[in-house]
Amino acid sequence: MRNILVIIFVLGLFQPVFSQDNKDSLFVRNLFDEALDSYIAYNQLIQLCTIAPGRLAGTDECAVAQDFMYKEMKAMSFDTIYKQPVWVRKWLQNGEETAYFDIGDGEKQYLAVDALGGSVATPEDGIEAEIIVVKTMDELQTLGREKIEGKIVFFDFDMNQHNIYTFPSYGENAGMRVYGAEEASKYGAVAVLVRSLTLAQDTFPHTGIMRYKTGPKKIPGIGISAIHSDMLAEAYAENPHVKVFLHCACKEYPEVKQYNIIGEIKGSKYPNRIITIGGHIDAWYNTQGAHDDGGGCIQSLEVARLFFALKYKPENTIRIVMFLDEEMAQRGARAYADNPVREGEQHYFALESDRGVTYPTGFSFDGPDAFVKKMQSWTSLFEPYGLHRFEKSGSGVDISFLKVKGCALAALVTESQRYFDYHHSANDTWQQVNRREMQMGAAAMAALVYLVDKNGLY
Amino acid sequence: MRNILVIIFVLGLFQPVFSQDNKDSLFVRNLFDEALDSYIAYNQLIQLCTIAPGRLAGTDECAVAQDFMYKEMKAMSFDTIYKQPVWVRKWLQNGEETAYFDIGDGEKQYLAVDALGGSVATPEDGIEAEIIVVKTMDELQTLGREKIEGKIVFFDFDMNQHNIYTFPSYGENAGMRVYGAEEASKYGAVAVLVRSLTLAQDTFPHTGIMRYKTGPKKIPGIGISAIHSDMLAEAYAENPHVKVFLHCACKEYPEVKQYNIIGEIKGSKYPNRIITIGGHIDAWYNTQGAHDDGGGCIQSLEVARLFFALKYKPENTIRIVMFLDEEMAQRGARAYADNPVREGEQHYFALESDRGVTYPTGFSFDGPDAFVKKMQSWTSLFEPYGLHRFEKSGSGVDISFLKVKGCALAALVTESQRYFDYHHSANDTWQQVNRREMQMGAAAMAALVYLVDKNGLY
Repeated sequence: MRNILVIIFVLGLFQPVFSQDNKDSLFVRNLFDEALDSYIAYNQLIQLCTIAPGRLAGTDECAVAQDFMYKEMKAMSFDTIYKQPVWVRKWLQNGEETAYFDIGDGEKQYLAVDALGGSVATPEDGIEAEIIVVKTMDELQTLGREKIEGKIVFFDFDMNQHNIYTFPSYGENAGMRVYGAEEASKYGAVAVLVRSLTLAQDTFPHTGIMRYKTGPKKIPGIGISAIHSDMLAEAYAENPHVKVFLHCACKEYPEVKQYNIIGEIKGSKYPNRIITIGGHIDAWYNTQGAHDDGGGCIQSLEVARLFFALKYKPENTIRIVMFLDEEMAQRGARAYADNPVREGEQHYFALESDRGVTYPTGFSFDGPDAFVKKMQSWTSLFEPYGLHRFEKSGSGVDISFLKVKGCALAALVTESQRYFDYHHSANDTWQQVNRREMQMGAAAMAALVYLVDKNGLY
Repeated sequence: MRNILVIIFVLGLFQPVFSQDNKDSLFVRNLFDEALDSYIAYNQLIQLCTIAPGRLAGTDECAVAQDFMYKEMKAMSFDTIYKQPVWVRKWLQNGEETAYFDIGDGEKQYLAVDALGGSVATPEDGIEAEIIVVKTMDELQTLGREKIEGKIVFFDFDMNQHNIYTFPSYGENAGMRVYGAEEASKYGAVAVLVRSLTLAQDTFPHTGIMRYKTGPKKIPGIGISAIHSDMLAEAYAENPHVKVFLHCACKEYPEVKQYNIIGEIKGSKYPNRIITIGGHIDAWYNTQGAHDDGGGCIQSLEVARLFFALKYKPENTIRIVMFLDEEMAQRGARAYADNPVREGEQHYFALESDRGVTYPTGFSFDGPDAFVKKMQSWTSLFEPYGLHRFEKSGSGVDISFLKVKGCALAALVTESQRYFDYHHSANDTWQQVNRREMQMGAAAMAALVYLVDKNGLY
């Protein structure tokens, strides 16, 4: 063995690898040090969450958020800042929802609920109807119109606690939230109540998008907290004729024009090769949207700040993109992919942070095998910082539209145990974000972008 | 390659490894599933934190906590439950501390402070004195008696943000909290204020043990929040003669008898070989002690519950130990190591959880290389659950006393970014504990104990 090492050293085989590795690992170390020392990004997150909670695309709150990010970018050293116009739906909650059931003697048990995104309103004086508990989408058919007509369908499914990475558990059940009202309406349901997609037991209702397709009638969809779901299920077990009252006033308005906010650092060597780094600026009406996805936006901006701070001049053009309207219809992402911001742009690489800004555990890559292999060759540079999973899988909703442009995609992957406690609920506040965890993610993103910028994709 | 695989399969070379691995990985999977489905441990943590906050050894609150754990153990299927008597110091805070400085026009800027553990009181009407800012212990000598005498020394050091695993940052500065008053008193200081050992910027003061040795005079030691440390440093920069008022009434009382609470499952094959699993039941006066170390206690108890639930009958004797008095003087740990609970006991293996009950990342082992190597051979069984660091290093304060008994030691290692935000402060509440993260740690502990129990240490 010793002889082999001698030969390798004599031949200088280790030389280029070593010096490159050292330079890269030193730069990565500097990125992490700079990120961990800084409070700038965390203070930006606090501001964003404080001045623009409930910043659903199309709302005034979202406009405030866009102005804030634009102003923050202006104060930095970007070469160009773009406001890319995007027409978006404007759907408003219009005041808090009401839900309760009678517990006898004229007493009501109120339920913590939030309208699902895109839901129609109830009639002005609400809906009062018996409920029917449904555990799977298939049960609707089994029960049929006879059992469902005129009732409120209560989708009372538990999220699967067994997945260690929790996103698949979300994926397993999200369909009931998205299409439950549509499907239930086919059997004559008058509304749907949907158990919140959370792995926690608490009283936060969670919202999220729902969609109407071809159903005979649009019926309201309303999310109900985990604890109140249990309460209602218990009441139903005792009395299958228990009636629930529901009221919501949400409404769709004419579309409005808002913006993707984009900060660009022009590449010194490949100005037309674009590396996109982003999160989405919109968040649900019931939340500060700290983890989803204020934190991801701020991390993306922090990547640029770290480059400025360390005086790194990228060879490719770097774009920090605050995508508009991820939650409702991804109009911002579509506009970004479809309409060149600059003539001649080639979408080379894109990185999204939209899985919560908890502790980073790795990256997920979407692209050709050779690209994934190259990315995986850098794993050892990230392991000292706890990132150890470099997997081929999906990326992020916003950047996924760049795939057809031949763009290689990546997503920051973070520790997922807590994420769905916060997701789409009033519990998603900046207080739930740990500065160091968020900054570790930003530094990891910057490190990956640096490595791609220096070494290419293959 | 295909031929080699055929040969291996034909020869059955994979067979024994595979079946053992399969059985083990299946059991580990069952442990995680059972843990992730259950709310028992989390509800125990909430109860412990709610009925017995501030349960410093020797206090009535600690007695409440011991009774609670004893009662919880009684309701389980342990073979024996022991209350091992331990005499402990009784030191009380005796009401909230006061600290402020004058900001002119008779206005006061109050400072969030907590007495350090074991501190003497100020005189009854407090201390008012000029401060002197000190950044390192060495500076005391440089400044000398001339600059220090009659003043309050303000140890205003920042914790190092660059360590990715944050415990070394704590270690670097904890000496100033522990010995700062002792050292400053040698130069005639009248009290010390110590910047909280936290990586966050907030108004929570953090306490922790301080020690007097041979100094000429015992002077009070008081912890001050990070934000108020900045405020005070700024005031001092503007006016080096700024005076601070301090009052605390803490006091040492005669020692009292309390208990280690121990639940035992007798080993079917090696009843005298003891596997100890534990945390410490005491917590500082200013906190619920959820991460430090109520969570570690509850995780230890959960290991037993998981074994009961999965009907696992250990070959070695398993002891779940709620150690008393880790924070002040480790009297419980010493008593446990020194005084056999049962005749003929041999301390075989010990596992502690006292690094916060955030997401588990691995284990730290303390023992012979052959032991560490054996433990590391199981890494792949844990990787699907995110535990990937199996390192030779320290273990835990309580079990460290078993080392001289030849016991092999291990500690659960958890993601450390958030820990010092909570540690020894009122911020360490059950609300800061995520059920799934805590349960992942408990399942990982149970898995390691299972593997050691079945396969031995070497």
